[in-house]
Amino acid sequence: MMDGFERLDGPTEELSAAAMTGTLYGVGMGPGDPDLLTVKAQRILMRAPVLVHFCKRGRRGNARTIADAILRDPAREMALAYPYTTEIHPEHPEYVTALAGFYDEAAGKLADHLGAGRDVAILSEGDPFFYGSFMHLWRRLKDRFPVEVIPGVTGMSGCWTRAGTPITWGDDVLTVLPATLSLEALTERLRGTDAAVVMKLGRHLPKVRAALSAAGLLARAVYVERGTMAGERVVMLADKADDDAPYFSMVLLPGEGRRP
Amino acid sequence: MMDGFERLDGPTEELSAAAMTGTLYGVGMGPGDPDLLTVKAQRILMRAPVLVHFCKRGRRGNARTIADAILRDPAREMALAYPYTTEIHPEHPEYVTALAGFYDEAAGKLADHLGAGRDVAILSEGDPFFYGSFMHLWRRLKDRFPVEVIPGVTGMSGCWTRAGTPITWGDDVLTVLPATLSLEALTERLRGTDAAVVMKLGRHLPKVRAALSAAGLLARAVYVERGTMAGERVVMLADKADDDAPYFSMVLLPGEGRRP
Repeated sequence: MMDGFERLDGPTEELSAAAMTGTLYGVGMGPGDPDLLTVKAQRILMRAPVLVHFCKRGRRGNARTIADAILRDPAREMALAYPYTTEIHPEHPEYVTALAGFYDEAAGKLADHLGAGRDVAILSEGDPFFYGSFMHLWRRLKDRFPVEVIPGVTGMSGCWTRAGTPITWGDDVLTVLPATLSLEALTERLRGTDAAVVMKLGRHLPKVRAALSAAGLLARAVYVERGTMAGERVVMLADKADDDAPYFSMVLLPGEGRRP
Repeated sequence: MMDGFERLDGPTEELSAAAMTGTLYGVGMGPGDPDLLTVKAQRILMRAPVLVHFCKRGRRGNARTIADAILRDPAREMALAYPYTTEIHPEHPEYVTALAGFYDEAAGKLADHLGAGRDVAILSEGDPFFYGSFMHLWRRLKDRFPVEVIPGVTGMSGCWTRAGTPITWGDDVLTVLPATLSLEALTERLRGTDAAVVMKLGRHLPKVRAALSAAGLLARAVYVERGTMAGERVVMLADKADDDAPYFSMVLLPGEGRRP
């Protein structure tokens, strides 16, 4: 074990087996504005020899775009292109199988780098442990390699900030809902909470609108698209004429709790 | 209006009335580790002429402690000491009145600076629009002065990161609950969610424990104290022998959703 191998920034006094492998970093990239990267995220992006991002086939990854301001070295980069985008339902067995294979293969590529002593940083939109693709690679690699996760500003924080509205006051309960839930489930959960964030809108926006109406809450709902990014749009949901909702969009239901 | 007054970093071509007043910044300080400040937060802390933080009487503010690494100029600082800490229940009319008076008075002091053209930055633990005291000053000043809020990494992101557990997978529903709710309300909400974060523990920890037990979820619950800070502690709640829970503590119930 003690063969004298030493990583540049590794421990100097005691060398364990782990010190001879690279570290897997899950780097929270924040909501979109590169100024909202943390100091720690920025430092790891600068120095990690392998930088990984997820993307749709033939497209640039969103997390990678956030890093544009500080990355200038394509030789360090590795893109992982999802096998499908939105053509197949995520609950469909074929999709699950394809995705599992994709994550297995990606984990294998990363393991090669880590095993060779190279640190690998996975660029994760928002916060890595909050609905992040990073988690699927983390699950496959965490027991074999040292891991460090750098939390990030979530997309939802970016959205309520840019909407200019506090999301929770006093003892408000906040519920974060994927728009993929049924109309009935969405309606019931919206009725039973003080504040809500509805994520993963996509083609589900008409259903979300209907659920908010049924719960008597449509007038309070705010639609935010590309919060903190170029092309940002904030509008009361009731005033939004169409039902288009791109990847970076969500609906906010701000709380109205105690305000001394 | 156009008297030639110009702020150092203000607009140079067109001077509006707003440009002659200072800007109110709500600065998200993140979960505790100064390395988890955003690049933007750090920049504003460096240059704002007035830096405000909340604290308990006779104590240092937690948000101020996070800033220790970069602030070295006490002349810029203003501490706002809450009139009460935990002696009076927050729903008590006397408390609400005292707190309202405190925020009114504080807003007055800040308005003096803003009106004189000085930018004011309020240091806010975590994210300013997520259960933040900042919101109470923002509400009193937002219609009179330009405001900019800088979102931050939330305390809960810091805690689930340090607990080493993703909080939401796939289509998990996340519920954020103040521990101040009744035992019945907590139990019902814990039963009805995939993932949860219970905040504001304080003296409510025995009740939170009971609610998790009643919902059959105690074995999954993680207790995190001072996440990302010195003195950090992560333990399964079932293994925590006492019921002490300091200000910076929360209980996490990680989701177990789709994992291809």
